[in-house]
Amino acid sequence: RFGIGYQEDRVGDVPNFTVDQATGEVSRDGDATVDTDNTILVSRFRLNIDGTAETDGGVEFSARVRLQADEDSGNGEANEAGLNGARFSVIYGGLRVDAGNVAGSFDNLANYYGNEPGLESFIGQYSGVDYSFLGYSSTGSGANAVFFQYAVGDFAFGASYDQATVALDGVPQDADRWDISATYNFNNITAALAYGQTKANVNSSSEKQSLTVLTLGGEWGNFSGTVFVADDDVVNADENGTAYGLSLAYTFGAATTITFAYGDGSADDDTRNLGIGAIYDLGGGASLRGGVGEAKTGDQDGSIRADFGAQFNF
Amino acid sequence: RFGIGYQEDRVGDVPNFTVDQATGEVSRDGDATVDTDNTILVSRFRLNIDGTAETDGGVEFSARVRLQADEDSGNGEANEAGLNGARFSVIYGGLRVDAGNVAGSFDNLANYYGNEPGLESFIGQYSGVDYSFLGYSSTGSGANAVFFQYAVGDFAFGASYDQATVALDGVPQDADRWDISATYNFNNITAALAYGQTKANVNSSSEKQSLTVLTLGGEWGNFSGTVFVADDDVVNADENGTAYGLSLAYTFGAATTITFAYGDGSADDDTRNLGIGAIYDLGGGASLRGGVGEAKTGDQDGSIRADFGAQFNF
Amino acid sequence: RFGIGYQEDRVGDVPNFTVDQATGEVSRDGDATVDTDNTILVSRFRLNIDGTAETDGGVEFSARVRLQADEDSGNGEANEAGLNGARFSVIYGGLRVDAGNVAGSFDNLANYYGNEPGLESFIGQYSGVDYSFLGYSSTGSGANAVFFQYAVGDFAFGASYDQATVALDGVPQDADRWDISATYNFNNITAALAYGQTKANVNSSSEKQSLTVLTLGGEWGNFSGTVFVADDDVVNADENGTAYGLSLAYTFGAATTITFAYGDGSADDDTRNLGIGAIYDLGGGASLRGGVGEAKTGDQDGSIRADFGAQFNF
Repeated sequence: RFGIGYQEDRVGDVPNFTVDQATGEVSRDGDATVDTDNTILVSRFRLNIDGTAETDGGVEFSARVRLQADEDSGNGEANEAGLNGARFSVIYGGLRVDAGNVAGSFDNLANYYGNEPGLESFIGQYSGVDYSFLGYSSTGSGANAVFFQYAVGDFAFGASYDQATVALDGVPQDADRWDISATYNFNNITAALAYGQTKANVNSSSEKQSLTVLTLGGEWGNFSGTVFVADDDVVNADENGTAYGLSLAYTFGAATTITFAYGDGSADDDTRNLGIGAIYDLGGGASLRGGVGEAKTGDQDGSIRADFGAQFNF
Repeated sequence: RFGIGYQEDRVGDVPNFTVDQATGEVSRDGDATVDTDNTILVSRFRLNIDGTAETDGGVEFSARVRLQADEDSGNGEANEAGLNGARFSVIYGGLRVDAGNVAGSFDNLANYYGNEPGLESFIGQYSGVDYSFLGYSSTGSGANAVFFQYAVGDFAFGASYDQATVALDGVPQDADRWDISATYNFNNITAALAYGQTKANVNSSSEKQSLTVLTLGGEWGNFSGTVFVADDDVVNADENGTAYGLSLAYTFGAATTITFAYGDGSADDDTRNLGIGAIYDLGGGASLRGGVGEAKTGDQDGSIRADFGAQFNF
Repeated sequence: RFGIGYQEDRVGDVPNFTVDQATGEVSRDGDATVDTDNTILVSRFRLNIDGTAETDGGVEFSARVRLQADEDSGNGEANEAGLNGARFSVIYGGLRVDAGNVAGSFDNLANYYGNEPGLESFIGQYSGVDYSFLGYSSTGSGANAVFFQYAVGDFAFGASYDQATVALDGVPQDADRWDISATYNFNNITAALAYGQTKANVNSSSEKQSLTVLTLGGEWGNFSGTVFVADDDVVNADENGTAYGLSLAYTFGAATTITFAYGDGSADDDTRNLGIGAIYDLGGGASLRGGVGEAKTGDQDGSIRADFGAQFNF
C-alpha cells in the first residue's frame, strides 16, 4: 500500500551540516531533530514467507517470516526492507499452537481492533489501553513466546505465555507475562473476553500489571459495528482505569465502505482517538483508502492526521 | 555474477590486532585501513521480489523490493545480502507513476549510461558529472520520491520530485530536488534531453545546483553507439562545467561483443574514464565478461582497474 | 525446527533498568548480563534462495543466499531473520567450483560432523578441534573464498583457498588459508583425509597454524558409525595436539533412530562432548527430535544441555 499522509507538526531526524565560517567548507555533523514536511509519501511493502509440511498423521507444521518495508514517518524518507522474527505453528483439528514471534490472546482477540479508519489504520477504539500485551512484531524480533488456541463449536479459547527476564540495577527480574481468552459466536454476534497480567515489577509501587478486555461485534446486512470495554492496571497511575470505544462500518452501493472509530479512557493521561475513513474497492485485490482523525493524550493538544492512497494484495 | 577484479592500490578496513609485549597475548583492537590484495573475488547476487495486482478497470499496481549481496570492494571480503527500500508503481496505458525508492528522469534516461565495459560496468561516459540526481538504490533505502512517465507515439516524457529536509546547525532546510526529461525516437536513433535541480543550499555561495544532459544513441546492424553531453552546476566550483563522453559496442560472429567507453569533463577536478570490454554469450542467459580501464580525477594519479568473470540471470 | 532447550547455568544480555530513589521513576540503563531461564524456546527458520542457469554447452551456474532466523540462546528471546553472504557455483560433470561464502575442504568433508545428537545438533565428535577452518556461514557474510571439488569414480578431491588480510598494530598481514582433501568410497565404507593451514601469525610464537583430519564412516543395515582422528596446531599451546571422536546411529522399527556421539582431545584445554539423541520420523518431512549431553572444556565444570522439539522441511 502507498499514498500520501498528513501529520500535524511532524518532526523527524535529518542529516545535520555545519559550515566553517572561515573557509566556507560544509561538513556533516550527525543528525538533528527538526520540523519536517507535514505531508509525506507513506508506504508499506509486506510479504509473508511461509513454509508448511504435513505429517502422515495429518498434523500440519508451518513457519513464517515476514519481509516488510515502511517509510520513516518522522523525516518522510524511505526505510530499507527488513525481516522479522520467525513464528512456528502446529495445527491439528481445532487446536493450534504457535511458538516464537507470536500474537497473544489480545492481539488475536475477535474485534479487539475493530474497524480502523485510514490507509494506515491510524485510528482505533483501543486507544485508551496502556498495558503492553504480547503482540506479533512485523518489523522486529518480537517475543519468544507460546500461544495456544482451541476451537470447538461456537466457542474458542486462547492462552499465551511469554517467558522473559529483565535486570534491575544488574539483578535479574522475572518479567514473564501470560493471558487467556474466551470467544463465543451466536447468530451474527461475537462476544470475546480476555485477561492478561505480567509479574514485571521494577519498583515497590508496581506489584503487578494487568489488562481485562470485553468486546462485542455484530453484522446486520451492510452494517457492522464493535463495542470495546477494558480495564488496565499499569505502573503509571495516570494511565490506569477504564478504557472504552466503538467502531462502525457501512457499505453502500457496490464498492464503497465508510468506517468510523472512537476510543478513550477514564484516566488523566489516556489517549483519545476519533476519526472516519472511506474505502473504495477497485477489484483484483486493490482498493483506494483514506481517513482523517485526531489523537489527543491527556491535556496535551490534539494532533490531526489524514491519509489517502491505494492498497493492493499480491 | 562473479569473477575476479583487479584494482590498483586497493585499500580497505580489516580487523586490527595488538600484542601485549609482556605476555605475548594477542587482542583485537578495532579495525585498521591498510593496503589489501589488489586482485580479489568480485560478485553480485541480485533478486527482485515483485508483487502485482490488476484492478477490474485494467490499472496495474506493482511493488518491488530488491535483495542484493556484493563483495566489500575495499578489503575483498564478502558482505551479507541486504534488502533495499520498496518501490510502488501504478501503470495504465502509456502512463506510469512510481513512488518510494524510485529512479528519476536521469537514472531512467535513454542512453545515459550507454555501454559500460567490464563485468562490473566500472567505466562510463558520464564520469564527468558531479551532480547528485535522484537514483534507484539497490542496497539502501533510496529516496522517498515520485516519478511520472508518459509515452505517446515516438515521444516519452518523464518527471520526478523528491521531497527532503536537511538541517544546517540544527535548523531545517528544504532539500527538495526535481527533474524532467523528453525522449524522441526516429528510425534507429534516440535523442533524449533532461534537466534537474535542487534547492539544497547549505552556504551562501551555493544558491542552486543543477544538471542538464543531452544524449544521442543509434544502432546500425552490429554496431551501436552513444554520445553524451552535460552541463552541471554544483557547490564545488572545480567540478562545475561541461561533461562529455561516448560509448561504442560492436558484435561480431555469433556471440562476441566488444565495448568501449570514454567520459571526461572540462572542470579541474572532473573524473576521466576510459576503457574497453568484451562479452561472450554462453546461451541460457549466461555470459563471460571482462574489461580494463582507467579512472583519473583532476591532477591525481590515474587508477587502473580490470575484471573478468561470468554473469547469469535466473 | 523448534522446541524446548535446556542449558545449565544459562546467562544472557537483558535490558537493565534503574530506579531513581527520590522520585521512584524507572529508566532504562543499557543491558546487563545476568542468569536467565535455563529452559527456553529454541527455534531455527532456514530458507535457501537459489538461482540457476544452464549454458548451451551444459555448464550449470547457480547462486544461493540463505535466509535464517534463530533464537538468542543467551537471553532466550527471538532474533530477527537475516540474510547471509552469497555463494556462486559453476558445475560441469564431476567438477564443481564454488566462490564467495563457501564451505572449505573440512566443512565439506565426508563424516566430519558424523551423527550429532539433539534437535540442535549440539554434540559432535569434532569437539577437540580448535583450528578455525573455512566454513559456510549461515548467518553472517562468511569468507570470500574459492572451493574446488572433482569427483571421478570412487574418488573425490577438494581444495579451497581463502584470501584475507588482517592488521597488526595497523600494519597489514597476510591471513590467507587453504586446505585440500581426498575421499575414497569402497563398498559401504568411506574414508576421507584433509589438511589445511593458514599463514595468519600475529606473534613470533605462532609461525603457522594447521589441521589434519582423518575420518572413516560405514553403514551396515540399520547401523551406521563414524570414527574421527585429527591433529591441530594453533596459537594456544594448551589446545594443540590430537583430537578424536566417534559417532553411532541405529534405526529400529519403522521410524525411530538413536544417535550417539563422543569427542575429546589430548590437550589440556580441549573440549569434550558426550551425548545421546533420538529421532522419530512423522513422515511428510517432519520429525520429533531430542538429545541430552555434556560439554566440558579442560578442568572447568561440565555443562549439561538437553533439547526436544519438531523439525520439518518445506
